[in-house]
Amino acid sequence: MDEKAYDVLRRITEVGPRLTASPEAAAAVDLTRKIMEGMGFDNVHLEPITVNRWVRGAKEEAKVINSGEPGRIALSVTALGGSIGTPGPGITAPLVEVRSFEELDRLGTGVKGKIVFFNRPMDRTQVDPFAAYGGAADQRVGGAVRAARLGAVAVLVRSLTFRIDDAPHTGMMSYSPDVPKIPAAAVSTAGAEILSALLKNGKPVSVFLKMSCESLPPVPSANVVGEITGSESPHDIILVGGHLDSWDLGTGAQDDGAGCAVSLEALRLVKAIGLRPKRTIRAVLFMDEEFGGTGGRFYAVASQRKGERHLVAMESDRGGTLPVGLAGGGSDPGALRRLRAWSALLRPLGITDIGPGGGGVDIGPLLERGAVPVAVITNAQPYFDVHHSAHDVLESVHPRELELQAVILAILCYIFAQEGT
Amino acid sequence: MDEKAYDVLRRITEVGPRLTASPEAAAAVDLTRKIMEGMGFDNVHLEPITVNRWVRGAKEEAKVINSGEPGRIALSVTALGGSIGTPGPGITAPLVEVRSFEELDRLGTGVKGKIVFFNRPMDRTQVDPFAAYGGAADQRVGGAVRAARLGAVAVLVRSLTFRIDDAPHTGMMSYSPDVPKIPAAAVSTAGAEILSALLKNGKPVSVFLKMSCESLPPVPSANVVGEITGSESPHDIILVGGHLDSWDLGTGAQDDGAGCAVSLEALRLVKAIGLRPKRTIRAVLFMDEEFGGTGGRFYAVASQRKGERHLVAMESDRGGTLPVGLAGGGSDPGALRRLRAWSALLRPLGITDIGPGGGGVDIGPLLERGAVPVAVITNAQPYFDVHHSAHDVLESVHPRELELQAVILAILCYIFAQEGT
Repeated sequence: MDEKAYDVLRRITEVGPRLTASPEAAAAVDLTRKIMEGMGFDNVHLEPITVNRWVRGAKEEAKVINSGEPGRIALSVTALGGSIGTPGPGITAPLVEVRSFEELDRLGTGVKGKIVFFNRPMDRTQVDPFAAYGGAADQRVGGAVRAARLGAVAVLVRSLTFRIDDAPHTGMMSYSPDVPKIPAAAVSTAGAEILSALLKNGKPVSVFLKMSCESLPPVPSANVVGEITGSESPHDIILVGGHLDSWDLGTGAQDDGAGCAVSLEALRLVKAIGLRPKRTIRAVLFMDEEFGGTGGRFYAVASQRKGERHLVAMESDRGGTLPVGLAGGGSDPGALRRLRAWSALLRPLGITDIGPGGGGVDIGPLLERGAVPVAVITNAQPYFDVHHSAHDVLESVHPRELELQAVILAILCYIFAQEGT
Repeated sequence: MDEKAYDVLRRITEVGPRLTASPEAAAAVDLTRKIMEGMGFDNVHLEPITVNRWVRGAKEEAKVINSGEPGRIALSVTALGGSIGTPGPGITAPLVEVRSFEELDRLGTGVKGKIVFFNRPMDRTQVDPFAAYGGAADQRVGGAVRAARLGAVAVLVRSLTFRIDDAPHTGMMSYSPDVPKIPAAAVSTAGAEILSALLKNGKPVSVFLKMSCESLPPVPSANVVGEITGSESPHDIILVGGHLDSWDLGTGAQDDGAGCAVSLEALRLVKAIGLRPKRTIRAVLFMDEEFGGTGGRFYAVASQRKGERHLVAMESDRGGTLPVGLAGGGSDPGALRRLRAWSALLRPLGITDIGPGGGGVDIGPLLERGAVPVAVITNAQPYFDVHHSAHDVLESVHPRELELQAVILAILCYIFAQEGT
């Protein structure tokens, strides 16, 4: 295996963090269009979309006040995506720790005027890190609304990672129209442990928090599209893709530069072997997955889709780690059975498990329109070590593990292009 | 999953490199015996053995001479395990590059007085890194004998790794009684690329090499043994183990501190759950695997084995990366079939592939006596990045990936202890 997917990933990450609507995201659009052209793809183009713009502003500040400990303890925090900032000078308020919404609701208006600290860790006993993530992410996504409803002035959320370190992990949060907006930040797991220990001392703990993040007017952006046009049924599409935007703390190597790189490399491999697919194999680099999938929603309904039929949609957004299985067919047992018929081709590449599922944020709207989802399942054990944090950089990706995913996708693309689903 | 295997691994690697017969290897024997005692294992003891002693001496020196390039280019080299040193002042000789023994033999006595540079890379097109390793390791193991037979004065061997970097990878080499011994060193892949490029220029290239490694008289050492004695058939043994010795460039975290740590953790887990196995579950930390398996050979025939019957032997020596499958039963289809009957228990832990094989250097002598081999297959893609080099340190191991292997081994130990094979 030539490790060319890694070369593409290097170029993408060299652009820097690619937060939706940022100059770097725009530069990544230009870069990947040029890469597609350089690889000789057909019909390379941008599909213009409009995206919301959220900016972090100055680096956040947070520290523990009057905990009874000498000095002021600095906390590593990061604004959650979409959060409002604090008032200019920052806010200082007593901290109250909860581990669940139920616990929060029991406190009721006792949290009024306070900062609610959501500190339920990802469950280490879960073998599947995505299950552990799913079991803790409610705090990040919905914590601000739940706390604001009871009168809290801000929320601090324990970073979603198994690791105990000082790197905060960001991610999207949401507001509700009928509830006041309050600032929401993630605190590093090491910081969360400190806060929890201080609170256990029984003395009151207050926290100072200052964030200048804000939402600005929407800006133009784009999905990047290129393909190998089918020789017999060009309007039948086999789609493979990832999302080009990333969070802004690292350089989005695992999430989701990897998905973009393997999508491009899959098409390059099909071309390099000299294959001429009957149906169209298309790579789509979606914009703005992290804030909810603007690019994916637009793609599915764009006027360019007229007359097109998406047979298969393969979204790669689980990192560039070792491929260990496939998920596919959504909840359709027939589609899964047909996918499993190809398992002998994938076994030499380490794919020994093919299960149901395979959906994703960006391809969701295509699935509603009948596309069959297929996803490469990768080793998730190290994924949340880096996810949405400053650790998500090129060095966290292994060149051969990444290339294996591209090879698997290339094989799947060609099978589906020739045989349908 | 509590990541306790990683805590054990940390303690083992903190001892330092554990080259057979070194003071650090002796310290690791003491440490792991204490760890076994601390974990409450039964019958914890050392089984004394005698091991050969090879010492590296002063750091090796190597540089390119009269290549036509300005200055002298330093090369990162490391003596291969078992090699003789150079004469005190070092040797300087013209370099001749070959990629195979066939190519060497065609040169014949044309290599007389020269240093033979074996530069066949691991084959990147192999999906399985162990296959790529196996396809290149002949140069390291047998290169010195083949070259010396034709009159060469030393050999330089390209390090066995896919990575292009400046860390040389050592490993065992061998001599033949009827052929003069010549010094044998590995050169980093980056150094190998430089040498090959210089030679392609067409000008003669000479290399200076200085090594002070040597073999000293044998010293006493030990295997470390502890168990959970079976409640019904204490003389029926389910063995799990790894090797305690390592190479001396890193701290032997993947090779094979990981195998030792998961073996200890597997027994600890069985005890922690409160299980009382019918047959004996035994952890054995073998000494001197890297120089050919002295500990394993001794263990199988030791007087303590009288009356014991080893039903299953599970050697963990493939690193502490993600478990992806099992190999077992050797070449006995019946044993493999019986192993596969337990697959539903292992599936939630990511084990979806159970194939034949499962042998290893240390358990080889037990297999000859009827034990059934079983091995956890781990993600080998990153393994040779660190194998036998300074990169093989604690930080290359992921705590959860390591613990998963221990959990799988604990389940297998208990199944076999209750159900036999």
